[in-house]
Amino acid sequence: MTIAATDLRPVLIAGSWRDASSNSTFQATDPNRNETLTPTFPVSDWQDCDAALDAAAEAAVELRRLPATKIAAFLELYADKIEAAKDALVESAFAETGLARSPRLADVELPRTSNQLRAAAAACRSGNWALPTIDTQAGIRSCYRPLGPVCIFGPNNFPFAFNSVSGGDFAAAIAAGNPVIGKANSSHPETTRLLAELAQEAVNESGLPAATVQLIYRTSHADGERLVADPRVGATGYTGSRGAGLALKSAADQAGKPIYLELSSVNPVVVTPGALAQRGEKMVDEFVGSALMGAGQFCTNPGIVMLVAGSETDEFIDGVKARFASAAAGTLLSPAVARSLTQSVQTLTGLGAELLTGGGESESGRCAVANTLMRVDGAAFVKDPEGFQTEAFGNASLMVVADSVEQLCQAIDQLEGNLTGCIYSSESGSEEADVERITFVLEPKVGRLLNDKMPTGVAVSPAMNHGGPYPATGHPGFTAVGIPASMLRFGKLTSFDNVRPPRLPCLLKDESPMEETMRLIDGQWRGGSV
Amino acid sequence: MTIAATDLRPVLIAGSWRDASSNSTFQATDPNRNETLTPTFPVSDWQDCDAALDAAAEAAVELRRLPATKIAAFLELYADKIEAAKDALVESAFAETGLARSPRLADVELPRTSNQLRAAAAACRSGNWALPTIDTQAGIRSCYRPLGPVCIFGPNNFPFAFNSVSGGDFAAAIAAGNPVIGKANSSHPETTRLLAELAQEAVNESGLPAATVQLIYRTSHADGERLVADPRVGATGYTGSRGAGLALKSAADQAGKPIYLELSSVNPVVVTPGALAQRGEKMVDEFVGSALMGAGQFCTNPGIVMLVAGSETDEFIDGVKARFASAAAGTLLSPAVARSLTQSVQTLTGLGAELLTGGGESESGRCAVANTLMRVDGAAFVKDPEGFQTEAFGNASLMVVADSVEQLCQAIDQLEGNLTGCIYSSESGSEEADVERITFVLEPKVGRLLNDKMPTGVAVSPAMNHGGPYPATGHPGFTAVGIPASMLRFGKLTSFDNVRPPRLPCLLKDESPMEETMRLIDGQWRGGSV
Repeated sequence: MTIAATDLRPVLIAGSWRDASSNSTFQATDPNRNETLTPTFPVSDWQDCDAALDAAAEAAVELRRLPATKIAAFLELYADKIEAAKDALVESAFAETGLARSPRLADVELPRTSNQLRAAAAACRSGNWALPTIDTQAGIRSCYRPLGPVCIFGPNNFPFAFNSVSGGDFAAAIAAGNPVIGKANSSHPETTRLLAELAQEAVNESGLPAATVQLIYRTSHADGERLVADPRVGATGYTGSRGAGLALKSAADQAGKPIYLELSSVNPVVVTPGALAQRGEKMVDEFVGSALMGAGQFCTNPGIVMLVAGSETDEFIDGVKARFASAAAGTLLSPAVARSLTQSVQTLTGLGAELLTGGGESESGRCAVANTLMRVDGAAFVKDPEGFQTEAFGNASLMVVADSVEQLCQAIDQLEGNLTGCIYSSESGSEEADVERITFVLEPKVGRLLNDKMPTGVAVSPAMNHGGPYPATGHPGFTAVGIPASMLRFGKLTSFDNVRPPRLPCLLKDESPMEETMRLIDGQWRGGSV
Repeated sequence: MTIAATDLRPVLIAGSWRDASSNSTFQATDPNRNETLTPTFPVSDWQDCDAALDAAAEAAVELRRLPATKIAAFLELYADKIEAAKDALVESAFAETGLARSPRLADVELPRTSNQLRAAAAACRSGNWALPTIDTQAGIRSCYRPLGPVCIFGPNNFPFAFNSVSGGDFAAAIAAGNPVIGKANSSHPETTRLLAELAQEAVNESGLPAATVQLIYRTSHADGERLVADPRVGATGYTGSRGAGLALKSAADQAGKPIYLELSSVNPVVVTPGALAQRGEKMVDEFVGSALMGAGQFCTNPGIVMLVAGSETDEFIDGVKARFASAAAGTLLSPAVARSLTQSVQTLTGLGAELLTGGGESESGRCAVANTLMRVDGAAFVKDPEGFQTEAFGNASLMVVADSVEQLCQAIDQLEGNLTGCIYSSESGSEEADVERITFVLEPKVGRLLNDKMPTGVAVSPAMNHGGPYPATGHPGFTAVGIPASMLRFGKLTSFDNVRPPRLPCLLKDESPMEETMRLIDGQWRGGSV
């Protein structure tokens, strides 16, 4: 198929919207109608990547010279522009993702995105993210410094809040003083382009280097791997599927380049008999609400519920089954998500999980699969823990029913690393001994441990960890959400030893850069000058 | 060769000193006499590693249940025991490494080691290392938690302070709540065994799990790689040569296991014409002192000096040459170090570096190579930067003479990641524009930037970064020295979301665990209760 140049969307490289260097193209699909959307996007070849890397390397040098206030002003201006362009952005994201215009896109995700950019601006301005540390006796001072160009691969499920050119990784990388090369998620390229347009306007108006934000839409796997391993790159942030993420990790690791991954997670929810006895119906409500929200397409969607056999458990499962069966299936993000969900369910039932409801093929008129509930007993789970942890991304959950707390703990002990793990238990305190055993095996497996609360909903808090042990992420010490902690991923720790005072970075000079700046001065965190 | 079982040193596994499972053995060499030392040590096969891993996994579970005070008490008791056994330890380390008994071993390195253990104990007790963070509004609290068994591979050059069972990585891993599997450096196995004996006594007396500290002496490369990638391992700390370190990194990366490396570094020292004009002779003193100290066997030894051509530079180089030629060559740590140094010098001269003095083979009676000084011009360096950055570990340095500040900056821009980088310049302030350019290209290459100070000497300070960009280390965001920062490498970030108050870890409960504990409570670092 030959595409006229005018039909093709341009890439954003070195501050200019220009034609991609290759002829290969793709189009996104409207999942609500299963129809191909009009705009055509280029698949970038290495020439585009190379040009973006050169420009980013140059921008990184310029950015290091700029005061933090200038970078912060850009982030705030960009946030304003996103809010001003809300209608167009929501319309585009709705067409490309099928997510509800309201409240989801317009009233939840978009404000979260602009607020995240503003929080990053504040952290950038105060410098608190960089953990400025001053040892006056030893004459040594340290802080985190920009790392260099950051490549960001955004996921399909948050077209704004985790978008490669507006989301959490983007805000963190820019606020830490680095330029970004965004790789759009191929399921919402037009939304990403609209965001990049706003970003570029803000870059120009705030006087940042032209290549502070760049955008390509898609590359071959080989070029993606070459990109993250390139000497010009500082680090990479990736949110998406495990297979693609691990291939990028392998390439980056070999080159000694940091890469931060947020991969799949089944987010186990443990529900004790006591919790069900006390509030079984409420539990059904809570669980169904969390499991089917956004058609289950959250990184923290509760994919596995772990229970102990008994009549309350059977009632709970029956209740969930009835609600799953009667609720309308949400639209999935893309045909690929629908295919993958169907396949995962087939894998799980193939291994012996009992299909309680759902499990069919995708609807023909839109991307949707009936809400799916499966059940397996604890003994079977413990026999093939890897198989039964196959992620079914979307509106499907697996109930694992152990024959005892003992077996429940065995099953938990077989879990891979996860973003979250929840424990619901009796409020009477009668189960504390069991809960202690469960917590003890569950905590090491998860980045965030919850009690009496579902995992969906990731508050932007300094205490939030949106991370976890491998393979939920690539490193158990970092979080992808929570300004300023998430910014540390894109910083380089640097000591200044006996460096002459006028040559110190602003954050480490005797005089405090601003009132809000907290520094660890001779062992005490405090504001003010040395 | 058949060795009677009684001649063989035992390994320490699961709290017992026992025979290794394999028959393969090795012996260390006294580098001062080039003589094989009597004790014979086993090369452990996978059976030993597997047993150590099982025991460590069990110990990790037990350690997580213990109060921090108990772990801190162990570290302090162990520090006391090291000091009490000073004479025997120094004698053993002297025989195995050739490092001076005094002041080096007895008066510098040993006290540093025990002080490091005590600093780690204090950080463990207060919990400050874990960055406890409390968001009362969101109901979320977070801190770093133990990660699981840590494998530590110690280097040859610090038989106490970086020893796998007493050094910086050890102190950090234990204080973070993890058991350690130590892999002795093969050049000082007896010293390591003596330390492990003291550690085991302290483990028993303080009531820690028996397998809190374990020791093997050597493994095959294949078993080493299997060890760091094992599912039972939490993380690995490695200090040593680049080749072995990168092989371990590759294995750990593939398994998603964190590994912290401290590899080779040439530690560039930039000296401007102004510095030489003002204090050329003093610069010779300072440089020679730093370059030849401990026969140059420090990770932060200044291997490359970068200068601008001119008469002061020639005088400086002549001065250094004379001092190198007249100073007695220090004893190197082992025959392998002597061989490797000779080879590196041959590589550098083969590439075109001019040999100004030294460069011969090792002496026959002991491990020693004449102090070696080489020179290359900036143009040649820029043409083959990788070749001219070949590390010559030991008493050898390379002078890189650029024809201009422009070329100097080009050469700096070609440097790999390094632990340190120094800039000496005029005190008059007349060179600030040049220094700014130099700093701008040097800072991104190094973990610690120094002014008017040599890089050897790594103060234990909260502001110290003993780290740097790849390939000096495996990740630019972590330091191997500096309690508590170095402990973060062995922690897992964990959020507690809506977790019932009695179930929170001590560090995150409302009441403050102790007066010294600083927590980020609702955005403010402070002591006291919530």
